[in-house]
Amino acid sequence: MSTDHLSATFAALADPTRRAILARLASGAASVAEIGKPFEMSAPAVTKHLKVLQRAGLITQGRQAQWRPCRLEAKPLHDVADWVEQYRRFWEQSLDRLDEYLQQLQTKEKEDGRTE
Amino acid sequence: MSTDHLSATFAALADPTRRAILARLASGAASVAEIGKPFEMSAPAVTKHLKVLQRAGLITQGRQAQWRPCRLEAKPLHDVADWVEQYRRFWEQSLDRLDEYLQQLQTKEKEDGRTE
Repeated sequence: MSTDHLSATFAALADPTRRAILARLASGAASVAEIGKPFEMSAPAVTKHLKVLQRAGLITQGRQAQWRPCRLEAKPLHDVADWVEQYRRFWEQSLDRLDEYLQQLQTKEKEDGRTE
Repeated sequence: MSTDHLSATFAALADPTRRAILARLASGAASVAEIGKPFEMSAPAVTKHLKVLQRAGLITQGRQAQWRPCRLEAKPLHDVADWVEQYRRFWEQSLDRLDEYLQQLQTKEKEDGRTE
């Protein structure tokens, strides 16, 4: 298992519950109890997910004794966007080709319809 | 382990060798032997990585008997870009706040320098 930052980030994102936790935190900091509420999950299960997100730097947890809010961190998400951006030209070309192909199919269908 | 598409994609991307393979394929289709060359890796190790990428839909492999080229597929990369895009406003605001903070520090340093 590699421990480079980007690999840790992608591994942490490879779970729908963890992605849902990030979506929740995008609208503001929240306590562990608040984060766990919508998932009907045991506190230890929530804590385990939060630890994975924390190790990947995607969230940080405050140190106030009572309310230790978790916060979303921008940097790893920005790194993911930077990484995938290098493939933009690739997928735009691919989708353009698919579009052309579908238009050709439609044109052909219309022509076939006319000659039948 | 969840088997939703996005989770499978992120899990496949959580390895630097697999990301390097995708970067290689972005410049054109390649055979398994060609893909393995720069990594000084055994053929079974390369095949294992390719299978993970294939299951995630990130690559496809041709069916010609001799040269079975692997190709990069656009859709999962586009899905990753779509997913991370929803956080753009979040990280732009965070980076703006960091920028403001650093400018305040610099201004303060200059002022302190003047009054010393």
